[in-house]
Amino acid sequence: MRRFLTDRARRAVAASLRGATRPAAPSPAPAAALSRPSPSAPSAMAAYMARAMSTSAAGTPPVSLDTINPKVLEFKYAVRGEIVTHAQNLEQELHKNPESLPFDEILYCNIGNPHSLGQQPVTFFREVLSLCDHPALLDKSETHALYSSSDAIERAWQILEKIPGRATGAYSHSQGVKGLRDEIAAGIAARDGFHASGDNIFLTDGASPAVHMMMQLLIRSEKDGILCPLPQYPLYSASIALHGGSFVPYFLDEETGWGLEVDELKKQVDEARSKGITVRALVVINPGNPTGQVLAEENQKKIVEFCKNEGLVLLADEVYQENIYVEDKQFHSFKKIARSMGYTDDDLPLVSFQSVSKGYYGECGKRGGYMEVTGFNADVREQIYKVASVNLCSNISGQILSSLIMNPPKVGDESYESFMVERDGIISSLARRAKALEEAFNSLEGITCNKAEGAMYLFPRLHLPQKAIGAAQAAGAAPDAYYALRLLQATGIVVVPGSGFGQAPGTYHFRCTILPQEDKIPAIISRFKEFHEKFMDEFRDVSRDEAPTGA
Amino acid sequence: MRRFLTDRARRAVAASLRGATRPAAPSPAPAAALSRPSPSAPSAMAAYMARAMSTSAAGTPPVSLDTINPKVLEFKYAVRGEIVTHAQNLEQELHKNPESLPFDEILYCNIGNPHSLGQQPVTFFREVLSLCDHPALLDKSETHALYSSSDAIERAWQILEKIPGRATGAYSHSQGVKGLRDEIAAGIAARDGFHASGDNIFLTDGASPAVHMMMQLLIRSEKDGILCPLPQYPLYSASIALHGGSFVPYFLDEETGWGLEVDELKKQVDEARSKGITVRALVVINPGNPTGQVLAEENQKKIVEFCKNEGLVLLADEVYQENIYVEDKQFHSFKKIARSMGYTDDDLPLVSFQSVSKGYYGECGKRGGYMEVTGFNADVREQIYKVASVNLCSNISGQILSSLIMNPPKVGDESYESFMVERDGIISSLARRAKALEEAFNSLEGITCNKAEGAMYLFPRLHLPQKAIGAAQAAGAAPDAYYALRLLQATGIVVVPGSGFGQAPGTYHFRCTILPQEDKIPAIISRFKEFHEKFMDEFRDVSRDEAPTGA
Repeated sequence: MRRFLTDRARRAVAASLRGATRPAAPSPAPAAALSRPSPSAPSAMAAYMARAMSTSAAGTPPVSLDTINPKVLEFKYAVRGEIVTHAQNLEQELHKNPESLPFDEILYCNIGNPHSLGQQPVTFFREVLSLCDHPALLDKSETHALYSSSDAIERAWQILEKIPGRATGAYSHSQGVKGLRDEIAAGIAARDGFHASGDNIFLTDGASPAVHMMMQLLIRSEKDGILCPLPQYPLYSASIALHGGSFVPYFLDEETGWGLEVDELKKQVDEARSKGITVRALVVINPGNPTGQVLAEENQKKIVEFCKNEGLVLLADEVYQENIYVEDKQFHSFKKIARSMGYTDDDLPLVSFQSVSKGYYGECGKRGGYMEVTGFNADVREQIYKVASVNLCSNISGQILSSLIMNPPKVGDESYESFMVERDGIISSLARRAKALEEAFNSLEGITCNKAEGAMYLFPRLHLPQKAIGAAQAAGAAPDAYYALRLLQATGIVVVPGSGFGQAPGTYHFRCTILPQEDKIPAIISRFKEFHEKFMDEFRDVSRDEAPTGA
Repeated sequence: MRRFLTDRARRAVAASLRGATRPAAPSPAPAAALSRPSPSAPSAMAAYMARAMSTSAAGTPPVSLDTINPKVLEFKYAVRGEIVTHAQNLEQELHKNPESLPFDEILYCNIGNPHSLGQQPVTFFREVLSLCDHPALLDKSETHALYSSSDAIERAWQILEKIPGRATGAYSHSQGVKGLRDEIAAGIAARDGFHASGDNIFLTDGASPAVHMMMQLLIRSEKDGILCPLPQYPLYSASIALHGGSFVPYFLDEETGWGLEVDELKKQVDEARSKGITVRALVVINPGNPTGQVLAEENQKKIVEFCKNEGLVLLADEVYQENIYVEDKQFHSFKKIARSMGYTDDDLPLVSFQSVSKGYYGECGKRGGYMEVTGFNADVREQIYKVASVNLCSNISGQILSSLIMNPPKVGDESYESFMVERDGIISSLARRAKALEEAFNSLEGITCNKAEGAMYLFPRLHLPQKAIGAAQAAGAAPDAYYALRLLQATGIVVVPGSGFGQAPGTYHFRCTILPQEDKIPAIISRFKEFHEKFMDEFRDVSRDEAPTGA
């Protein structure tokens, strides 16, 4: 009984706190609950009791859901949400009793984590890292026999020379080792054809902490809004919620291959402003996550112009810049676009995020990445530095790897050829996998799927029968979550329901990575097909003239 | 003129925002400004103009100090603050023109960063790391010739077996690799003699992100307070400010060797509560930073009892657990103390922070660490996991190193002897350096210094002449900041002013690490002495009977 009261009271307090600290959520909610029922309206009595309980002295725990930060309680992160927890439980079950389930392994297609599915690290990068981790190897003659190319050894020397005291075990400058930042800047300049400076690089433990830093800087209260795509990578909605801001969605247009239209941006900004929201920044993910589209240059120009006119910071998530799978598209950084339009550092605050976790390298476990920060005045830059300094610095292996991906072996280097074989092998295989999965999805009844032009995901749309939607409702789950759960239980394949990324009202999707190794793709496709066909057979809406008598 | 107005307006807005979002700061301010004059009282006109400027459309930058998150603007982080920036500028000057300054190198005694000052990494740890970074080495016969012991190779194999797919390049579970967490838990159990579970370990990129996670969880608004020592490591004041909470200070007693008295805790909690603050947690740093004291077991018991009675979370910063320099003191974890008192997981929420950056290893650049989270209910634990999951996971090298420091070579292992020689060499040298510096400080006029029983710092007190305090005021600086700046300019030695850590009103200190290599200590001491004596000669208060005629 007491437990029941506490639970009710908890939900009431959580709801009332949400009301007190956040304006009405933008509709649709960016990351709806997977299966948790929405809290019932708070009754004054329940709220009073919860408060009385949480402040009474002895007997109650010092920390409960009633008394934690409601911003923590509120946000969702579906990429590692309930469906993944369920998959982990099934995996443990499989481990204990391999015969207990209708499949023999869990296939994690929920997250862009290539090495977990068998992708091998790029040899050159790992050789350099191992030498930097244990520089004593560099002094030994046997080392040459162990390493595939002399330029890995040479590169390790060069990197160590850039690190004060060659101390890879020391905290660096809070933006990262200056010499490595300069190397990254040179890589950016070579990519874009425009100047870049190491002073503008902030090395971070992956792109996520960089995104948090910018949100922390820009968001003062729930009156500050950040424009984000829908569907979006839920890092953004989570970070905005954690920092107490307002998520201002703009919709990507599924009909035009997840097109990003400036008219839609303008409409959403105006609407947010009419509600008293100060829109601070625009998030663009290019190539798109979860949608896989690659923006056209003309489109990017319009977006830059829009940010300039509206006084917005452009937060460019460009972590998939090396993942392009179609001939007719190319990656252009937003900085290159802005500079090519004649805009200088004085015209437009622009932050570009990059990560060692994506691309052909996929080194998620190294937690390396950087942001290139341009167009902020010196005072504000100093504050960004201060925020970076509280965590002292990012990990040095990640810093080194960030410099390597922006300055890989070049023509003429001993390792160049073998490096390119590895690199192109990965990229072209990803392209084939994307195509095979897309075609498989499109071949099925009730599924349509845009092409993955880039990134690591497909985001197929489920045209679910009414009967399936009814079954989901009866189970207390969102229809796409219900589908994903049934898929997991039947096949061991883990995908993320579209509701975790946000989707147009009344539409249902799921995100599926293209990362299982190529030799597994046919089996995955046939397992998927078999499940889907059975699912449709179970739920297919029966038209009237086919209805059995008596229905 | 416009710039002047903007600056005035900026300060006015910042001040008014501070007023609006935070209650009166606890006195004394935990981290007072180094040299920035306090903002003048906002005039309504200036505030109005600033607001008008910041919201006017075109022409003004989208982001300025007026429009960033005031919590970012407010917090200070002296360990990498203005004095360090000044030192970095001097270093560049030295680099360009080695003869321009009265010293030939900058000695960074501002930060616990041992490898930056020449401490060598522990061989066993780095051997294992390099093998895990490039597992292909493990398959080659030449590898044995390169590595000093076969157990490093064996350990690398064991670690890879714990990582799913041996993929050190994959994101792990958001708490860290389960097998590594289990190994850490076994190390904790061996240390404490009480059970520990890998399920309670959250691996993080150093201890700082773990502290932020707990602050994010616990702080709902400025009405939530966190009890922190004064002096304190400014990570705490910075994190509390960034998360919008109230810093509730308790004073360590310098007279009794920086004693932590429960009466003082009680007094401060009661006072905070009388102001409407809900005190959520107590931060204890043991061994102390910046103070170097090691708590006695009896004292720790009283602290645990206090937290239990007052319903506080105990946040135990135990990152210096291996840095103990005196015979009569020993490290006891708070969990061991609590369990030895009979308190179980149900009695007391307790978080212990550990890091690979400290101890004899000092691997700051690896950004490894963990928190052991006990005494929270499952609902709340789930929320902590959710916060961890937004950044996906901590870096795998840091995770591996965390497991190594909690499970170093043991008696009987091939590498044990050489490992112990390295380990003990570092610890005993640190103890000698601490003693030499302490004695040197205590030998000087106007300085008193407690013993460093542990950690990596001394926190000497400056008994400054009135004339020196006057000179500091004339220069617009805090007296200890003025002293630190003069020291830097005369000797190249970088210390952090006591005001960066907080100190009892009217007292002045500085924090100086004990980390310069041992062969440099005599020269540092003589440079320091020479500076200090000149400083005292310049400012010594002249007593009346010695006053020159006419003064």
